[in-house]
Amino acid sequence: MSRIAHPGLAANITTAEHAASFIADGMAVGMSGFTGSGYPKAVPIALAAQIEAEHAAGKPMRLKVWTGASTGPELDGALARVDGISARLPYNSDPIAREKINAGEMDYVDLHLSQVAPLAWEGFLGQLDVAVIEVAGVREDGSLIPSTSVGNNKTWLDCAKRVILEVNSWQNPALEGMHDIYYGTALPPNRVPIPLTAPDQRIGQPTLRCDPHKVIAVVETNAPDRNLPFAAPDASARAIAGHLIEFFRHEVGKGRLPPSLLPLQSGVGNIANAVLAGLMTAPFENLTAYTEVLQDGMLDLLANGKLRMASCTAFSLSPVAAERLNADLDRFRDRILLRSQEISNHPEVVRRLGCLAMNGMIEADIYGNVNSTHVMGSRIQNGIGGSGDFARNAYISIFMSPSTAKGGAISAIVPHVSHVDHIAQDVQVVVTEQGLADLRGLAPRKRAELVIENCAHPDFRPMLRAYFERALAGSYGKQTPMLPGEALAWHQRFIETGTMRG
Amino acid sequence: MSRIAHPGLAANITTAEHAASFIADGMAVGMSGFTGSGYPKAVPIALAAQIEAEHAAGKPMRLKVWTGASTGPELDGALARVDGISARLPYNSDPIAREKINAGEMDYVDLHLSQVAPLAWEGFLGQLDVAVIEVAGVREDGSLIPSTSVGNNKTWLDCAKRVILEVNSWQNPALEGMHDIYYGTALPPNRVPIPLTAPDQRIGQPTLRCDPHKVIAVVETNAPDRNLPFAAPDASARAIAGHLIEFFRHEVGKGRLPPSLLPLQSGVGNIANAVLAGLMTAPFENLTAYTEVLQDGMLDLLANGKLRMASCTAFSLSPVAAERLNADLDRFRDRILLRSQEISNHPEVVRRLGCLAMNGMIEADIYGNVNSTHVMGSRIQNGIGGSGDFARNAYISIFMSPSTAKGGAISAIVPHVSHVDHIAQDVQVVVTEQGLADLRGLAPRKRAELVIENCAHPDFRPMLRAYFERALAGSYGKQTPMLPGEALAWHQRFIETGTMRG
Repeated sequence: MSRIAHPGLAANITTAEHAASFIADGMAVGMSGFTGSGYPKAVPIALAAQIEAEHAAGKPMRLKVWTGASTGPELDGALARVDGISARLPYNSDPIAREKINAGEMDYVDLHLSQVAPLAWEGFLGQLDVAVIEVAGVREDGSLIPSTSVGNNKTWLDCAKRVILEVNSWQNPALEGMHDIYYGTALPPNRVPIPLTAPDQRIGQPTLRCDPHKVIAVVETNAPDRNLPFAAPDASARAIAGHLIEFFRHEVGKGRLPPSLLPLQSGVGNIANAVLAGLMTAPFENLTAYTEVLQDGMLDLLANGKLRMASCTAFSLSPVAAERLNADLDRFRDRILLRSQEISNHPEVVRRLGCLAMNGMIEADIYGNVNSTHVMGSRIQNGIGGSGDFARNAYISIFMSPSTAKGGAISAIVPHVSHVDHIAQDVQVVVTEQGLADLRGLAPRKRAELVIENCAHPDFRPMLRAYFERALAGSYGKQTPMLPGEALAWHQRFIETGTMRG
Repeated sequence: MSRIAHPGLAANITTAEHAASFIADGMAVGMSGFTGSGYPKAVPIALAAQIEAEHAAGKPMRLKVWTGASTGPELDGALARVDGISARLPYNSDPIAREKINAGEMDYVDLHLSQVAPLAWEGFLGQLDVAVIEVAGVREDGSLIPSTSVGNNKTWLDCAKRVILEVNSWQNPALEGMHDIYYGTALPPNRVPIPLTAPDQRIGQPTLRCDPHKVIAVVETNAPDRNLPFAAPDASARAIAGHLIEFFRHEVGKGRLPPSLLPLQSGVGNIANAVLAGLMTAPFENLTAYTEVLQDGMLDLLANGKLRMASCTAFSLSPVAAERLNADLDRFRDRILLRSQEISNHPEVVRRLGCLAMNGMIEADIYGNVNSTHVMGSRIQNGIGGSGDFARNAYISIFMSPSTAKGGAISAIVPHVSHVDHIAQDVQVVVTEQGLADLRGLAPRKRAELVIENCAHPDFRPMLRAYFERALAGSYGKQTPMLPGEALAWHQRFIETGTMRG
């Protein structure tokens, strides 16, 4: 049975190659995709072939590529491999694209994920030429059934001059009805409150609107999403989860958190997944999540009933978990809502709901400034993503990491972070496998003592203490003691010698 | 005529000394005050004398002092001079307190001003023992007529166990009715949208509620607010204003700003005042302001009709302007609204209204990260104040500074900021007297070129270009080229030699 119930759009069915041929050098292309979910699988590959052919013929062809967040290898990998991307926003985690970016060969604009749609509407990113959007189906009225991620699809469909649709019959038709697409945003001075007051509240409609006259091509696909499997939590991740759950218990005991906590936001990755695994046996019931992505650990929590419901903008499930969800979607569908990332990450909503923000980091300094993007201050790993949206607006903002990396050569706790994504005011709790530092209400010098003693690896603690003491003695000012001549020496040493150890 | 119409509170009138005697060592005291406006003038001085006497008798006495933002010399200056403050939050600009803080003798917790009230309610700052609040009068029903600043007064009155009121008959009785105190905030999961959708909208009541049974003392005063006079704009400030106004004209021309712009937010200080002065003759009409403080330049704009209305949390007027406002308050009273700082700076509201945020800075780096608090990375100047509330949520976030300081020894544009308050994502425009860099939608390397060429002083441009070229060649990664071994060398050189020049 066709997934394309609208006759006009069904008449537009064509090949990926033909669809790609509408895209020309210099265009800005807004694609669907958030993590390895819901990105177009055929047109980008055809586009990469087209770009390769153009380059072989000595012609220039590079595109500005906008998405929700990261995508799969068929999009970022394929286009980066052929040098087809001149500028990329707002997030990347593809290894080939990452290499090009860090070689200085591709511009990368790393944005707060909540702000991408408003920036596009405000006209600050330039004109969007074409949208390429994966959907699960097209209804008779031409409205679109969203796929496994929503991301910026609403905005790309609205703002682009032309639209290419990929209708992926691999996606479960039962996705229909799980989305909540809000059409109440506006530009100032006409903005009104986002009416959302609870994670499970619907404020929009289940489908995406799309002017059929803008649709220049419809491509049918049958291809799986691609998300990476998670590693089983190791001892370090389990220790971090343990500290954090103990902290939540303590806060509930003090009456500063309700027994069902507050809506959870959890970054993507193994540590986040370990924390979610830890909640499986923790004494909290009727949890909710208001977060970017639904990953394996949350599915487990939904399955065992600990998690009452989850609001997100994308699935980010390992292949095994995705299969499990697909096989049993009816059981989960009333307890999962997918929203536009503008809403899933909206500062207004995050603050109102009082999310508990749990995000990973590359490093924190002794004062609790956090670097979550740039290795050694210059080499971008992925991007800031939604961490800033959540951290600044959270009820409690938590950052976590193992205390060391690269087999102990790198300390995640440093005298001075080499790049700042989250200022100390936005970092209330730092957790490593060594322990947890609760920095709320503390001045910088007191924060430093806690971070060093509770979070740093014992191997690096004496070096950190020695730096802090020298800074206390010799700093230009003593509000935030710092020695510019040696603040970044650990990073320089790593670059020169391969280790931060002295 | 008495300003205290409530019989029970009138019966509580006492001396500042007696009122101060209720305050004991170790207490947390929440005082009114935001800039040199509306802070208590008598009790803190009596408290300082009491502390001095205790210390002379060999007894410890130090307090935690919470306010709206900065205050006057009778509060911060008096208490800091006698070493009466153990910890201060959320903002300070008093020179004596600043010295103690930077000598490591006083803890200072520098907070986003919008977040102070929620943090207090959430219990993350500890118990508030006593509130000391200046008001312009007490109505018969016991409700309080706020003074020239609102700040955190609502929260201190609600949260403190005991309350001391100062009723200042120097304040103009016509202040009554100019305030809008919103009582709709709550803790999650019970938070609802802040219903404000326009700068001139009232969402609250004109008075502060106060349980008369908590009031342990009422002190009558007759003492002026103390705000510093502004310097007349110099050539550098006028040049910055000119660049900015040209930018606004350009944006209006492109259709990205309405002809009446969007609500203005302006930091305090001479540069901000110069920008406001520049708007006096700029081709924009029916302006509005949604900002922290109303300073001289805004009063001028209100007077000549360019500014339709202003919403703020405090007056921050020079003595001459304050006199002018007082003499003519009836003319202005319907066009000025004073709100709690939780609302004047609320991220939800700032984002909805689409404020044009204009804030000063100490330094920016070539990528547009901004330091607005720490000289040479360690010595705090004032604090982050509301700049983070506005910058991250603004429609356009602008930071401005002369390109050099200390007679040319310091460059405001540096290879790497020594402290980060505003990450590059939150900094869209950088302006110095040299020019303006519009960084919207640009990747780091492109941002660097613009900041160096448009904003840096010509004396420092060759050094910046040379650093950027070395970083481009030798950086660990090239997304944000950086050399940890020399990124902070300019600051170290200044500390060692008194100049950043090589």
